[in-house]
Amino acid sequence: MKSYRKELVFNVPGRRGFINITPDVEDALRESEITEGLVLVNAMHITAAVFINDDERGLHQDYETWLEHLAPHEPVDQYLHNRTGEDNADAHLKRQVMGREVIIAVSDGRLDFGPWEQIFYGEFDGRRRKRVLIKIIGE
Amino acid sequence: MKSYRKELVFNVPGRRGFINITPDVEDALRESEITEGLVLVNAMHITAAVFINDDERGLHQDYETWLEHLAPHEPVDQYLHNRTGEDNADAHLKRQVMGREVIIAVSDGRLDFGPWEQIFYGEFDGRRRKRVLIKIIGE
Amino acid sequence: MKSYRKELVFNVPGRRGFINITPDVEDALRESEITEGLVLVNAMHITAAVFINDDERGLHQDYETWLEHLAPHEPVDQYLHNRTGEDNADAHLKRQVMGREVIIAVSDGRLDFGPWEQIFYGEFDGRRRKRVLIKIIGE
Repeated sequence: MKSYRKELVFNVPGRRGFINITPDVEDALRESEITEGLVLVNAMHITAAVFINDDERGLHQDYETWLEHLAPHEPVDQYLHNRTGEDNADAHLKRQVMGREVIIAVSDGRLDFGPWEQIFYGEFDGRRRKRVLIKIIGE
Repeated sequence: MKSYRKELVFNVPGRRGFINITPDVEDALRESEITEGLVLVNAMHITAAVFINDDERGLHQDYETWLEHLAPHEPVDQYLHNRTGEDNADAHLKRQVMGREVIIAVSDGRLDFGPWEQIFYGEFDGRRRKRVLIKIIGE
Repeated sequence: MKSYRKELVFNVPGRRGFINITPDVEDALRESEITEGLVLVNAMHITAAVFINDDERGLHQDYETWLEHLAPHEPVDQYLHNRTGEDNADAHLKRQVMGREVIIAVSDGRLDFGPWEQIFYGEFDGRRRKRVLIKIIGE
């Protein structure tokens, strides 16, 4: 069994944003020289998400509107967590809806994807340096 | 390390539906001859889900009602994504709540499940051919 | 390839509660003697969750309030599932938001975590004996 580890680093300028990280994961897979196995891609921070969906700008704005409806940022004092001096409780909630991690099959040396699957980093509390972990195991 | 790959194909006649795919995953596991490892089961399409829960018809209707409340299909013009000519933005949202994939342990040649765990394909934009990927790694 | 399996058992005295199980997963990893691979941690019951987030009491109360808003326990007769004699339909819904399972990379013999990542068991229908599965594969 072979394994490979790589970190990606992001510093999203605003509070929230979505970044297509599919090419980065493809690079890591190539570097790993693994052709059959599984890839784990996870946010290393608890106010961010990694998820698979469509690379369509309108949909991303729909996600933004929907998540803000499900778990609004303001008023910040509606959340007990924010009494610790943070203002990011909503980010911890939004990340649960979108998910911490994805697992992708590796077959014949490629990410084994359907026609529209793309991997995104979802930031809900940006303006700081944050990391994503890629771990690949297989042969 | 051994690996095994199989696709399932679905064509749900309505817009939404839930299908118990546990027997299909058990078949794939038997075919793989893997007795210790992990199974990944994921939707290959971004308006569908794979999740584990109870095979109880009332609960499935509760999921349907609840998801429609959280991310209503209509009015379709409330979503920017639908300006691309689609009417399935709600399906992209519903799938995030239910999840793209599940990972199941394989122990002693069986899906290592609790007493009520069953695997479902969740369709949110049916009336077309769609696929689920099963990837098994182990020994 | 090596594999290791362990069950954790919980009996939460109230209906709902969150328990930090990170030390238990670290114990299992040590026992497994696996230094590179993947850990799966999943609820074996369909009214409970395993998720990764912050070990902060205020945030856990925020989750409780938020989940109760998204999928209220009462009135219990709003859910078809509860016509089976259960009163836990809301628990099946809450668990979908929080997730059944997490996958964690193992690197250099440790859980490969970011600075604040902790693993929680989320109970939504307690007052009974329930189990969590830990499955580790790797080398």
